[in-house]
Amino acid sequence: MAGEIKASRAMPVVNARIYPRGGLDVLSREEVARLKDASHGGMHDLLRRCALAVLTSGSASDDPRAAQELYPDFDIQVLQQDRGVRIELVNAPAMAFVDGEIIRGIAELLFAVVRDLAYTAIELGEDAVDLETTSGITDAVFGLLRNARILQPADPNLVVCWGGHSINRDEYDYTKLVGYELGLRGFDICTGCGPGAMKGPMKGANVAHAKQRRYQSRYIGITEPGIIAAESPNPIVNHLVIMPDIEKRLEAFVRLGHGIIVFPGGVGTAEEILYLLGLMLREENADLPFPLILTGPTASAPYFEQIDRFLRLTLGEAATSRYEIIISDPEKVARRMAEGVKRVREHRLAQQDSFYFNWSLEIPLEFQQPFVPTHEAMAALDLHHGRKPHQLAADLRRAFSGIVAGNVKEDGMRRVEEFGPFQIHGDTDMMQALDALLRAFVEQRRMKISGQYRPCYEVLA
Amino acid sequence: MAGEIKASRAMPVVNARIYPRGGLDVLSREEVARLKDASHGGMHDLLRRCALAVLTSGSASDDPRAAQELYPDFDIQVLQQDRGVRIELVNAPAMAFVDGEIIRGIAELLFAVVRDLAYTAIELGEDAVDLETTSGITDAVFGLLRNARILQPADPNLVVCWGGHSINRDEYDYTKLVGYELGLRGFDICTGCGPGAMKGPMKGANVAHAKQRRYQSRYIGITEPGIIAAESPNPIVNHLVIMPDIEKRLEAFVRLGHGIIVFPGGVGTAEEILYLLGLMLREENADLPFPLILTGPTASAPYFEQIDRFLRLTLGEAATSRYEIIISDPEKVARRMAEGVKRVREHRLAQQDSFYFNWSLEIPLEFQQPFVPTHEAMAALDLHHGRKPHQLAADLRRAFSGIVAGNVKEDGMRRVEEFGPFQIHGDTDMMQALDALLRAFVEQRRMKISGQYRPCYEVLA
Amino acid sequence: MAGEIKASRAMPVVNARIYPRGGLDVLSREEVARLKDASHGGMHDLLRRCALAVLTSGSASDDPRAAQELYPDFDIQVLQQDRGVRIELVNAPAMAFVDGEIIRGIAELLFAVVRDLAYTAIELGEDAVDLETTSGITDAVFGLLRNARILQPADPNLVVCWGGHSINRDEYDYTKLVGYELGLRGFDICTGCGPGAMKGPMKGANVAHAKQRRYQSRYIGITEPGIIAAESPNPIVNHLVIMPDIEKRLEAFVRLGHGIIVFPGGVGTAEEILYLLGLMLREENADLPFPLILTGPTASAPYFEQIDRFLRLTLGEAATSRYEIIISDPEKVARRMAEGVKRVREHRLAQQDSFYFNWSLEIPLEFQQPFVPTHEAMAALDLHHGRKPHQLAADLRRAFSGIVAGNVKEDGMRRVEEFGPFQIHGDTDMMQALDALLRAFVEQRRMKISGQYRPCYEVLA
Amino acid sequence: MAGEIKASRAMPVVNARIYPRGGLDVLSREEVARLKDASHGGMHDLLRRCALAVLTSGSASDDPRAAQELYPDFDIQVLQQDRGVRIELVNAPAMAFVDGEIIRGIAELLFAVVRDLAYTAIELGEDAVDLETTSGITDAVFGLLRNARILQPADPNLVVCWGGHSINRDEYDYTKLVGYELGLRGFDICTGCGPGAMKGPMKGANVAHAKQRRYQSRYIGITEPGIIAAESPNPIVNHLVIMPDIEKRLEAFVRLGHGIIVFPGGVGTAEEILYLLGLMLREENADLPFPLILTGPTASAPYFEQIDRFLRLTLGEAATSRYEIIISDPEKVARRMAEGVKRVREHRLAQQDSFYFNWSLEIPLEFQQPFVPTHEAMAALDLHHGRKPHQLAADLRRAFSGIVAGNVKEDGMRRVEEFGPFQIHGDTDMMQALDALLRAFVEQRRMKISGQYRPCYEVLA
Repeated sequence: MAGEIKASRAMPVVNARIYPRGGLDVLSREEVARLKDASHGGMHDLLRRCALAVLTSGSASDDPRAAQELYPDFDIQVLQQDRGVRIELVNAPAMAFVDGEIIRGIAELLFAVVRDLAYTAIELGEDAVDLETTSGITDAVFGLLRNARILQPADPNLVVCWGGHSINRDEYDYTKLVGYELGLRGFDICTGCGPGAMKGPMKGANVAHAKQRRYQSRYIGITEPGIIAAESPNPIVNHLVIMPDIEKRLEAFVRLGHGIIVFPGGVGTAEEILYLLGLMLREENADLPFPLILTGPTASAPYFEQIDRFLRLTLGEAATSRYEIIISDPEKVARRMAEGVKRVREHRLAQQDSFYFNWSLEIPLEFQQPFVPTHEAMAALDLHHGRKPHQLAADLRRAFSGIVAGNVKEDGMRRVEEFGPFQIHGDTDMMQALDALLRAFVEQRRMKISGQYRPCYEVLA
Repeated sequence: MAGEIKASRAMPVVNARIYPRGGLDVLSREEVARLKDASHGGMHDLLRRCALAVLTSGSASDDPRAAQELYPDFDIQVLQQDRGVRIELVNAPAMAFVDGEIIRGIAELLFAVVRDLAYTAIELGEDAVDLETTSGITDAVFGLLRNARILQPADPNLVVCWGGHSINRDEYDYTKLVGYELGLRGFDICTGCGPGAMKGPMKGANVAHAKQRRYQSRYIGITEPGIIAAESPNPIVNHLVIMPDIEKRLEAFVRLGHGIIVFPGGVGTAEEILYLLGLMLREENADLPFPLILTGPTASAPYFEQIDRFLRLTLGEAATSRYEIIISDPEKVARRMAEGVKRVREHRLAQQDSFYFNWSLEIPLEFQQPFVPTHEAMAALDLHHGRKPHQLAADLRRAFSGIVAGNVKEDGMRRVEEFGPFQIHGDTDMMQALDALLRAFVEQRRMKISGQYRPCYEVLA
Repeated sequence: MAGEIKASRAMPVVNARIYPRGGLDVLSREEVARLKDASHGGMHDLLRRCALAVLTSGSASDDPRAAQELYPDFDIQVLQQDRGVRIELVNAPAMAFVDGEIIRGIAELLFAVVRDLAYTAIELGEDAVDLETTSGITDAVFGLLRNARILQPADPNLVVCWGGHSINRDEYDYTKLVGYELGLRGFDICTGCGPGAMKGPMKGANVAHAKQRRYQSRYIGITEPGIIAAESPNPIVNHLVIMPDIEKRLEAFVRLGHGIIVFPGGVGTAEEILYLLGLMLREENADLPFPLILTGPTASAPYFEQIDRFLRLTLGEAATSRYEIIISDPEKVARRMAEGVKRVREHRLAQQDSFYFNWSLEIPLEFQQPFVPTHEAMAALDLHHGRKPHQLAADLRRAFSGIVAGNVKEDGMRRVEEFGPFQIHGDTDMMQALDALLRAFVEQRRMKISGQYRPCYEVLA
Repeated sequence: MAGEIKASRAMPVVNARIYPRGGLDVLSREEVARLKDASHGGMHDLLRRCALAVLTSGSASDDPRAAQELYPDFDIQVLQQDRGVRIELVNAPAMAFVDGEIIRGIAELLFAVVRDLAYTAIELGEDAVDLETTSGITDAVFGLLRNARILQPADPNLVVCWGGHSINRDEYDYTKLVGYELGLRGFDICTGCGPGAMKGPMKGANVAHAKQRRYQSRYIGITEPGIIAAESPNPIVNHLVIMPDIEKRLEAFVRLGHGIIVFPGGVGTAEEILYLLGLMLREENADLPFPLILTGPTASAPYFEQIDRFLRLTLGEAATSRYEIIISDPEKVARRMAEGVKRVREHRLAQQDSFYFNWSLEIPLEFQQPFVPTHEAMAALDLHHGRKPHQLAADLRRAFSGIVAGNVKEDGMRRVEEFGPFQIHGDTDMMQALDALLRAFVEQRRMKISGQYRPCYEVLA
């Protein structure tokens, strides 16, 4: 793995050859050939961006564009040789290396990138699997997670933490405290793998795991190609998975996690809450235990009150029975989660369901199919009272998903630049509540901000 | 895994439910369904026979028919439940259990049986892969071995031992001594997994590994459906693989092993020697290091002299450069093997070939395609001087393979009963040598014997 | 650890330098100096003999004198160097080496020899500890075992097996079957570490442990300087302890073991039975669970009937409540032992006593003090009815101990040669029973035999 | 380990029973009795204070007095029971517990406290060892470290970091960066185990070790009874050792460490530098490689310049050859250390010296004997030019040691309160330099400060 340090513009860079381990080390000659082909073809640009995100993991800046601009000459090639695969890095960030050797954890994340993109390109490619049915999509999610060696038979202990990537210091410290209390009780952490509320719980849990002498802990980061560049894996992540799209990423969260904690966040977090509640409100899932806790420091109480009001207004009072709001009490959060996960464990045993994958959770096709936020699709969302809560939740989820895209994703931003803000239609009270919620996100600086925020949407009653 | 002991005729039997681990524990719902279907369909009888062989592993009797007759009511079902697969055993041999719990090693072998038969039925089934080309077949062998977790990146140290399953005490003790010397030098052992020369080297190596405090040793048994019932895995085997047919089993041996030792044996052993020499004599493999040692105690010297003469006569003097005969010197065998494997290691490094699978070895289709020993096929073998050595070796290999089938395999025995002995044609000297060799096997009681041996073949000049 | 092979007389020998590990690798400079001094002084001859026994472990011959005669020029030196200890072997048996490297397990046994002899010489030397009181002696036994890293907190699972070193094939195979059944149930084995009944149970357990995939099993051999040369550690022993004398060896057995199985044996075995029953019959130990099973194949039934009669006659009917005789049923032996050890576990938990050392067992000084079998001491034994059973057992134990010495130990044999047979006095019926027992041992060839056996004792009513 | 939470005054407290592991779990009955006695006698108050420091490890406040005042009713008892030792905690800080269970890492530190205080009281007690000779003291240090299981044969990789416990944020962040670079290169860290420069390097190394997937790292904290209360172990420490006094603590540092890094600090740090240079300047140690690097951020450059000037003035120019000053370059620090430790490794190999204990380092008695800073002893220090550098260094070390005591240790503070400031005599230039150095420490707030600092010393030319 020896490398050679060079200077490319301002930033020090390294060229290196790396020989993968952990799943990429025992490939057939044909698999190697297909992997090589895929990495040269359509997958190459994606591979390059994801690899760069991983190689700059832990850098001071969280701005993904910065990485692209700082290392313009970076390239990655997957090459074949008789004994298997070789990865060639050209003009790679020197920060990922020590004395010319790549840092082992970074190398593992890099192998994960190649592994998951290759799996998606080769195993989930056209004709290979049925991605038009509920069970076909769930099998694809299962297959990718198993190939990533995330599915291990073990007692339920995985808490998924959601929340914003740009939260304030007070909130960030709070996520660390919650992670610490979870870690003391033996929980592993799974997040979207970026900074902010995706990093704090891992950091707190890491300290607690060390104090409890728990050395084999899992810090799972689940991302997708559109978001990894913006939310580069934080340095604590030791299992990285790249799902093909945002819907499969959401499914991975709810099939893997034994409980979910939501910290303050922005539109993306609202999308995640609506996704989960949409599922929880289906009759088929009514008896399924699934602890869901919304929590933050005292100063965040108004935030959750607003979310709570919005959920009551849109999904009805019944929705509130599926979550609990706890303000400024990390220990209580951890204790309640422990109780909830105990119920999950008992339920799985009674149902003879696996611990590592929540097969029993019913996820209808409308929550699985990728939503492409065109102006037409956004305008077609049906946000009116009288619909079944889970259907309304599905459309609200899509609305937030579209706004995330308009804010931070390349495709979405380009569309908004070209055609103006998305137009979202619905009942007046719902539209007002939505608008108020979004404005609050802006005021609280929870939306992506560079300069003045110009909304990418218009809410029309 | 609790069971309940019952008495079925004379032999004590047990009913039990077993939940698989090690590869069968993380399956998708669809895979579970396919596995269940396969095990109920055409695979069921095969599964039942293989499972019984494994459950009676280590019994005093090595007669596979005995097992079938002793446990006539034995049955195995693979059932589905949400969390995965359940194996139901009915009227299973009590000897595989301790106080109602299945012995852990036996359970592992049982999972291996289900795993490999399922892989063959599902992954290698019709349309799934290309089994008509050299590379397709090699990929199938690779896939099955990888799925069996046999392929691990590690330094070359796997010695394949071939030889008869009914050798005399003197020869058996010698195989143990050779195994002991190999084990002292850190070699793992791979055999056909039955008794005799397939057990002795493992037993000796096991003692040596214990003395060297080597606790993670591999004792790999590679078998195939037609032979497992006749050569039930000996109790030392801790990795069992069931290849789909005899040709893929032979390919597995030569792609996995870093060197091969041949002890005295019968027709099956002769088949193996001709298979390997046939490959070695191809120009494409001329530069490939592959240590091959023929060895036995002093009393076995005439046996090897006869083999040697036969090989010189049929394949020519050049063949002798690819093997070494060592008589009554276990330590020398081990030292020579160590030297040879060192050369293999250096060659793989130089070629950047993998350590765990011998990709560079050229195996032509004629050595890969299953040979079905009908009377027509046997009569069509072309055993004449003037052919290329590797072609002649291929046909000689088939001749021995047919005789093995006529001796011990159900299909072959039935054919011989119906149509009389196979007729084998060839040049006079070659046919005389072949006949002499086969008669010697009979005299030395190396052929399967119950009562008087009636040859299943006629040699015609 | 490289060595150089030379030939000394007939047997191949090796010179080698070895650097110890496992307890001998972190010594202070002063400890190294003391160890060096001890190994040069009075301890040297003992060290040489014990080391030779270990280096010839597993040889075909079990005759210790043979080893001394075969390797007359063997020597061992413990040398000091800054970083610690170096062991120099001169003219050492080549069988302990592979290609010039010492076999790792043999090296471990060798370090154990140095470790225990050094501990005895340095830590238990004059003035260092109080060896005149019951608690002082028990502390010495504890200290030596702890230093040998034998004491580990773990669930009770250690079965001590006693029995003769020269038993017949039928009996030997039976000890293997019992060991196999014990091993299947997760028991570790502790014996006197020689051949025969000390090897069989380990061998059987070893096979069972492999089948149960139990890789960290303990095969503990406990010996003493007077006996190691005659009962060289069998090759399965992976923990060797050399206690200073026969009484501390017996105490080590009963403090470490969670249950004891007695196979057929000779005078030494009788000594062990009397030692244990003498303890069990004390009121202080009346409530202490301690499973004791006497067992052998069908042909051995008369042997145990005779032992049983002798115990009833001498120690009274009450003694029979402390042992169970099981004939020809290895599985029952293992199941009964499992039940007994379960009771031991519960008792230790209830008493908050440690699992690894039986502190609660009361061992009076008369069982702890070394018995030197002079003619005076033997004549002074008080073998009469009317004494308390445990006192009588103590003297009977001494009588057998003296006969063992007269048979096989250098001191004892010299005394008998010089002064004639020991004279043992006692009540007529007891003396007749003793004589009958001893004659039976002779007839059954359980006494050490080279040529005609000449009794080293006379029984006088 | 279940506990019961109660409220004592303001702070939540817990009562708990704990059963030790890791060295305290296999004790003889006599050892248990001696341990119990010691913990009830003179050792009890010390035990109570040290235990409290450990139980409040990681608390926000670093003020040890605070702990004493916050938990006035805390008590600890070591009790005997048959199976070993039980620790009873009364009114213990609830922060050390999770849901009534003590945090595992805290429990380990607690066992370490009991282990080391017991070893000191029992094994190093009067008459037990010779603490009047150089070799006797070194053996005591060795014995205590071995008993603490710190001495492990492994490649040299232990870097000792010295520096102040109250450094500024800039300096603290720098120590983390240096620790990070050391951790990336596989170094373990040993410090005085408190906050500031004793915590930062561990914290940085911890992050780096996680990135390098290095799970068995050692974070060793070495303290002594007078300082532990003031410098409670930081939460990363996973090996805690309590040496009996400051001189043995210093000896432990230099015998264990393979290199030393000094960050900015106060009088204590100056004491440590002088101790080490005093040793390095002895002829006997002239050829001993021992990397010593003084480093800090750019703002700390003047600090090191002043130290450098003082060392040149007092010990002469030759002293500067034994250390290197690196400003604001963490990577260079780590690279230079790696080079230095490589030389240490080669030297040890060449000398056949152990890797885990620096036996070759000559430490004369004057550096080993405890210095009790009475006014007489302080006045008697001989701080004049013309003395041998190592002798002068010894007295300068004592001068700083006395000032530390006058500043923060109970005995020293009481003496200064009663008799006024210590008077230190010496050559004018040396006294001026000393005074300037100490004043600078005050100005830079490196001396312990509550309110206005009143010097505990007067420098007299």
